[in-house]
Amino acid sequence: MRVPTGEALLVSTDVLVSDRHFPAATSPFDVGYKALAVNLSDLAAMGARPLGVTLGLALPNVDPVWLEAFAAGFYTLAAEHAVRLVGGDTVKSPQLTLAVTVMGRANPAQILRRSSAQPGDWIAVTGTVGDAGLGLCSILEPNSDPASLSPADLTFLHSRLNRPSPRLTEGHRLAEFAHAAIDISDGLLQDLQHILTASGVGAVIEQAKIPLSPAAQAWFQADPTAQVLPLSAGDDYELLFTLKPQDWPQVDFPATVIGRIEAEPGLRVLDAEGQPLSLLPHGFDHFSPNRTSQP
Amino acid sequence: MRVPTGEALLVSTDVLVSDRHFPAATSPFDVGYKALAVNLSDLAAMGARPLGVTLGLALPNVDPVWLEAFAAGFYTLAAEHAVRLVGGDTVKSPQLTLAVTVMGRANPAQILRRSSAQPGDWIAVTGTVGDAGLGLCSILEPNSDPASLSPADLTFLHSRLNRPSPRLTEGHRLAEFAHAAIDISDGLLQDLQHILTASGVGAVIEQAKIPLSPAAQAWFQADPTAQVLPLSAGDDYELLFTLKPQDWPQVDFPATVIGRIEAEPGLRVLDAEGQPLSLLPHGFDHFSPNRTSQP
Repeated sequence: MRVPTGEALLVSTDVLVSDRHFPAATSPFDVGYKALAVNLSDLAAMGARPLGVTLGLALPNVDPVWLEAFAAGFYTLAAEHAVRLVGGDTVKSPQLTLAVTVMGRANPAQILRRSSAQPGDWIAVTGTVGDAGLGLCSILEPNSDPASLSPADLTFLHSRLNRPSPRLTEGHRLAEFAHAAIDISDGLLQDLQHILTASGVGAVIEQAKIPLSPAAQAWFQADPTAQVLPLSAGDDYELLFTLKPQDWPQVDFPATVIGRIEAEPGLRVLDAEGQPLSLLPHGFDHFSPNRTSQP
Repeated sequence: MRVPTGEALLVSTDVLVSDRHFPAATSPFDVGYKALAVNLSDLAAMGARPLGVTLGLALPNVDPVWLEAFAAGFYTLAAEHAVRLVGGDTVKSPQLTLAVTVMGRANPAQILRRSSAQPGDWIAVTGTVGDAGLGLCSILEPNSDPASLSPADLTFLHSRLNRPSPRLTEGHRLAEFAHAAIDISDGLLQDLQHILTASGVGAVIEQAKIPLSPAAQAWFQADPTAQVLPLSAGDDYELLFTLKPQDWPQVDFPATVIGRIEAEPGLRVLDAEGQPLSLLPHGFDHFSPNRTSQP
């Protein structure tokens, strides 16, 4: 690989373990696709462009059918973003484990960081939020999805869970003017908190402004108790970013302003009436046996 | 990280699983040290200089004592070669699994490859061969080491197994004039065969010329049946390389010529009397229950 003169080399690495980071029943195509997607998403959040990727694969046994489908998923996404596989290692292990390391390049003066949010910044997010969490919910809790949800809606939510789109184009564009960025892997509030902590600032979020897909809207219409899920569920791999309000016109891709950065520390979430959520769904577990209807 | 202008970015990745790539009883310091060493050795075999490393760690539980010793081993070797940890991920998993990816840089015109051996080349090896295999043997088969072996000899063999020295300086020097190179991780004959296959050539090796440490010599004096081990045991992480005989004076570090590349395909091993070994210890398993005295 060659890194263009003057550009910095950026790296991201993730380890995924079966039954922990994806349900063991996930199709091998989706396992391969997602293993690469979550790493490319990390590059996107830095504003970097991918150079190459390495893949470490620990497998209980060598099943050619599984491997072929896994490789098809991995290479489908790699081809889409012109990422070359530049190294790999396959070993035997009782537990299916994947280690992916992506290398990317960026103008060293335009690397997006978590620590650069400034009071007065708008907080925005690409795409829609909460889809992957709903998709996971419907898989782990069969019949948790409302009967009114169409098969197409359900397929959409599963696809958002299993084949997230790394926002590389958006991240590279944002690097020109955005202040801070992160990808939503752990949940909107938790990932925003990472920015706030690193930047030493606070924020206000308007829950009603969080962008929802038609499928998520259909779900929440039938099951209002699930409405807090987009605040806490992760795995959407959308980009959360902050920028000066006057730079908003430069955002030339689907994104939504959901709040603003403030000097006062802390994270405040306002409901549709503009009232602070008294009980933040921080750590709210949609899959907990103690799940009760929450505000 | 920055890659100097005009240099290529080279990558190597390895996955290590407990009980498969190292005995589960290996000290955490040694696990950390060796996980980095085997990857740096891959860079050495390409003639590259390290830039940075990522570490993926899948652990059954978070044991601060284990982690601290592991990190001490990893960082001890990293500091020795000025390698920066540039990314990491720690996850929970039933099986201790390590994924290490090293990035290095090299002059693109001077990258050592397996495919560049030429008929007439000498075949040489750095350091001594067979030590790690004997060390492993003494750990897996208690009392397999001859009683005459001194405690210092045994300590040396264990250190060769657990803390291999990546030959980065040697590899970088070899890149200026050597033809082909590989590190001995799978065993001398098997790794040489990788070069022969990639280069489309054959070779003759003189078994008596294989460089042995004083500890290995002491072992073989008491246990002559083990003498084939340096041909098949791996894990020494010495560099096996080929070069024009007239370039030999440029080798300014400990290395030994053990054979030569020939146009005729195949790998021939001559014993101390210059006779071909009729039964090559290819696939010879020192730990096999069927182990018998072999020539």
